Amino acid sequence: MTETMHTTTTTRQQTRGGGPVQPRSATVLTPLGFGDVELTDGFLAQLQRENATTSIVKGHAHLERQQAWANFENAAARSVGEPYHGPVFEDGEAFKWLEAAAWEHGRAGSEQVAGWLAEYARLAASAQDDDGYLSTFNQAAGKRGRYEWISYDHEIFNMATMIQAAVARYRTSGEEDLLAVARRAADHLDATFGFDKRRETCGHPLVEMALVELYRVTGEQRYLDLASYFVEMRGHRTLTDPTWQGWTSVYFSDRIPVRETVYPEGHAVRAVYFASGATDVAIETGDEELFEALRRQWDNMVEAKMYVNGSLGSRWEGEAFGDPYELPTDRGYGETCAAIASIQWSWRLLLATGEAKYADLIERQLYNAVLSGVTLDGNRYFYVNTLQVREGAVAYDDRMGAAGRQEWFGCSCCPTNLMRTLASWHHYLATGSGAGIQVHQYGSATIDHGAARLRMTSDYPWHSEIEIAVEATGEDPWELSLRIPAWASGATLEVDGTPVPTASGEYARIARTWRVGDVVRLVLPTAPRTTRGHHRVDAVRGAVAIERGPLVYAIEHVDQDQISVDDAALTSLDLAEEWRDDLFGGIPVVTGPARNLPDGEVTRLVAIPYFMWANREIGPMKVWLPLDA
Amino acid sequence: MTETMHTTTTTRQQTRGGGPVQPRSATVLTPLGFGDVELTDGFLAQLQRENATTSIVKGHAHLERQQAWANFENAAARSVGEPYHGPVFEDGEAFKWLEAAAWEHGRAGSEQVAGWLAEYARLAASAQDDDGYLSTFNQAAGKRGRYEWISYDHEIFNMATMIQAAVARYRTSGEEDLLAVARRAADHLDATFGFDKRRETCGHPLVEMALVELYRVTGEQRYLDLASYFVEMRGHRTLTDPTWQGWTSVYFSDRIPVRETVYPEGHAVRAVYFASGATDVAIETGDEELFEALRRQWDNMVEAKMYVNGSLGSRWEGEAFGDPYELPTDRGYGETCAAIASIQWSWRLLLATGEAKYADLIERQLYNAVLSGVTLDGNRYFYVNTLQVREGAVAYDDRMGAAGRQEWFGCSCCPTNLMRTLASWHHYLATGSGAGIQVHQYGSATIDHGAARLRMTSDYPWHSEIEIAVEATGEDPWELSLRIPAWASGATLEVDGTPVPTASGEYARIARTWRVGDVVRLVLPTAPRTTRGHHRVDAVRGAVAIERGPLVYAIEHVDQDQISVDDAALTSLDLAEEWRDDLFGGIPVVTGPARNLPDGEVTRLVAIPYFMWANREIGPMKVWLPLDA
Repeated sequence: MTETMHTTTTTRQQTRGGGPVQPRSATVLTPLGFGDVELTDGFLAQLQRENATTSIVKGHAHLERQQAWANFENAAARSVGEPYHGPVFEDGEAFKWLEAAAWEHGRAGSEQVAGWLAEYARLAASAQDDDGYLSTFNQAAGKRGRYEWISYDHEIFNMATMIQAAVARYRTSGEEDLLAVARRAADHLDATFGFDKRRETCGHPLVEMALVELYRVTGEQRYLDLASYFVEMRGHRTLTDPTWQGWTSVYFSDRIPVRETVYPEGHAVRAVYFASGATDVAIETGDEELFEALRRQWDNMVEAKMYVNGSLGSRWEGEAFGDPYELPTDRGYGETCAAIASIQWSWRLLLATGEAKYADLIERQLYNAVLSGVTLDGNRYFYVNTLQVREGAVAYDDRMGAAGRQEWFGCSCCPTNLMRTLASWHHYLATGSGAGIQVHQYGSATIDHGAARLRMTSDYPWHSEIEIAVEATGEDPWELSLRIPAWASGATLEVDGTPVPTASGEYARIARTWRVGDVVRLVLPTAPRTTRGHHRVDAVRGAVAIERGPLVYAIEHVDQDQISVDDAALTSLDLAEEWRDDLFGGIPVVTGPARNLPDGEVTRLVAIPYFMWANREIGPMKVWLPLDA
Repeated sequence: MTETMHTTTTTRQQTRGGGPVQPRSATVLTPLGFGDVELTDGFLAQLQRENATTSIVKGHAHLERQQAWANFENAAARSVGEPYHGPVFEDGEAFKWLEAAAWEHGRAGSEQVAGWLAEYARLAASAQDDDGYLSTFNQAAGKRGRYEWISYDHEIFNMATMIQAAVARYRTSGEEDLLAVARRAADHLDATFGFDKRRETCGHPLVEMALVELYRVTGEQRYLDLASYFVEMRGHRTLTDPTWQGWTSVYFSDRIPVRETVYPEGHAVRAVYFASGATDVAIETGDEELFEALRRQWDNMVEAKMYVNGSLGSRWEGEAFGDPYELPTDRGYGETCAAIASIQWSWRLLLATGEAKYADLIERQLYNAVLSGVTLDGNRYFYVNTLQVREGAVAYDDRMGAAGRQEWFGCSCCPTNLMRTLASWHHYLATGSGAGIQVHQYGSATIDHGAARLRMTSDYPWHSEIEIAVEATGEDPWELSLRIPAWASGATLEVDGTPVPTASGEYARIARTWRVGDVVRLVLPTAPRTTRGHHRVDAVRGAVAIERGPLVYAIEHVDQDQISVDDAALTSLDLAEEWRDDLFGGIPVVTGPARNLPDGEVTRLVAIPYFMWANREIGPMKVWLPLDA
């Protein structure tokens, strides 16, 4: 490969095309260009289609029913005191949905989606105040003055979601209608906030990521500087909210500056969005001290504040991270949005470092903490992804649908977040660099980079044989890198029949002069395996989780003959895999010897992928199985 | 004993004297009369003195600082729109403190306390509206109209606390000043609420207990009928609160009628106050169906929704009961008030049935879930009584003082509740019946019943030798019943040197003709013992709790040489007791072989009574110890 697709530029030229996150500074890996990756078939491609035809379409109807856009119409009419619909961050939900529509437009498009994008871009523009301010709760509803309760009103958050939608729209279509609204909002924020202006920040982080992305698109340095200001302003206990009393600073990730933060804490989505935005700033400013602080925070999160499935935030109260190792299973919160935020964070760290652990976590969270958030038909959602639901919960308390997915929520952040994630998912599969192509996630897809074109074929995650065929290539040698997941010890790799050594948790790198017709075959082991609970986590001490390939498994009531989910314990680790055509159109289940505590007969339990639970009937489920020794 | 002290009367005569709960209907056991029990010496007597000289006095200052009484002054001035101080239930905190003052006045009195009682009774009277309504948030502050937001505004709850204070004041002094205010408030409620009037109830139960007690004092049947109405009105999902969305009915114990309730659920204090009040109604109306439903609910609560220490409500979110067996240790909530409410409930069930299990739970909760709520010097409080605090919590998040007691809280229910409980504690020690005297709780005390007078001497709970000397008695035979706690297998009992058989979990009954100078000696075993975690509770499976006598033990950072509290595991159950003069003026500690997980050296850990933790420095603590097998 002679070309480099590295899009880094130091000019201030506006940059279109691409997926989420297009660094201007040099990063180790570079996202591929717009349209350069396509999911062609298989499980994830099917999910993307369900997302387009069901989730995004129904999401539009749900937002209409919630009158989310009516708030903008009222603001556009400049009529103050109108009834307001939804929570203070309803604008944000609408824009998150609009961002999903923009990615979907870039992926496969449709006239309906194109129409929505044009219509709501116009509406946002007409609702925006002359100076760039846009947050309908404080405009049309006139509930409170501008920034009167900045901790709570989500005004900057709302504008940030609009900026993100505008970036997605511009990158996927080149349309500048919403981008102009985004620039005006960013200019308004820049004129209002700063160390020499209003020294405040928003209760809900997001603007940091949004401003950096807007900088990436526009080349406008002021936006990066403003993002940097918002990163540094947080952590000085300026945010207040009587609801949370003494815990306010923790809740808002405002207790200590990000450079000194050891563990993410407080509201999980806030904490991880903020870490993502700070990482963006570190990448674009070359601030190594900030970057290293964020890497340490990520390591600590993964070590002590994350569930086995990648869920984040163990506390229902405040939707918050617990203390280190406070990871109860039967009441874990694990908001879908927090896992999505974490994928965004890991993606940035992956681009900046090229380290496989970040792509490993993206895979873990996608399959086990994000996809669990939506039914296979794209109709219903989990806001909370708990690792255990007891019979008592099903019978007495299904609060916020922890036991069964819901069609929508008063706070619809998770569904809209899922939509934008799935619509843009293909962008996370592979990257390029001067050296070649790196494949991070597996499935059936085509990948273009410079003169090279690859066709990847796999029935992932059900089977882990991956074939990559070279359909086009330049003359010069280049390197194909394939992630060998940390769980994939014993993976085998060959190029045109010649074995290539692999090590799990690293990229296998094949540098050669490629020819059209070359075929690479990677086989990741899929024997069921178990993960032992950490001794510092009370709930899982002496218990194991079953995993298979990238999937965490769970036992669900409906699949068991004689095993009670609440009482089940494994009697040995003698697990087996069984293909079941009768389940979900064909999936591999895992079976194991088990009995009911305290003294049941030994029989076999049947485990299915965790993310597929609650797609049939509502009943008890659990991931962690005590070992009955 | 020839007299019966049974105070049951069917007349409508006003009844003074006595402690909390003086049934009019016949109950198996009858509370002793006013002044008939006195704690003379020892641990609990010392706590009562600290409560009087420190807690109640400082509580007065805290309430002054919070301007709790200023709200009443504003209401008395009939000036609407004044600034309001504290949460909507601030009246209730003031009255709970006033109830404590009333019991303290009855116990030992002081001119200062007598002055406060007269002063605040006058103030309450002057603040009361002409028709009997009294709730200063809605009066002087005029924040919302009367019963405009009945789910949240605590108006009926506030009046209920006043009624309870009035009953205490009347019983302990005969003063009718506050009682007159209470009657007017009850008459107002009676004129306002009912199946043929306003069909609503209060978001926070309490009025049920308060009205039955007012009925007991006044003989006014309407108050009992109104209490009965409030019991039946709950459980029909009439309460609303957008904060809790779909969970509202559960939170408010308003999801299903009490007669159909299987487990207490939702906000623990609400649920248990309500169960207590419903039990009062069942007792006074002779409603056996209702009574049996409540007994079943109590059994289920103890089986599946209570921590080993008696703490109730495992969820921080909503201060609520979890699902059955959802009892995580490292984030248990266990509000002090919930354990106090449970003591009130068990006391009623004990009076009605005479069954030892109710007195057993009172003991467990007093020593391990209520006394944990206050420092030994009476200065600082726990609102939350968690069974584990990790190093991370100490370092990063001491929300609401879970790791260290606080001087006061914005919501001061727990401190004031502790004060009224301790000031009236002697009333829970013993009861009478036609047959004789029943001793439920141990310590140094005098007990009078009819012609009999007993002097009990014990250094309980540190030592479990209990001596009861007969100092006076009538001529006829009567029965002395002594509770043998369920934990006290192997207890020995003798009368004047002659052994009497005992069975744990029952009352040992000695019926004879007593003579002055007779001495009964009871020795309860105090060897350290362990309780294994229930297999359905994730956090404690494979772990044990150490207990000794009535006390649950914990390991606290400050006492350990080489053991890290977070990592500690017991290597065997070879426990030993050691008397330590250097700790808290002399207490028995328990030691056991332990090591740090995953692979530390074996050494010995030192456990202290759980309720004494956080009296020295702030650091990690835990109750449940994993067994390293």
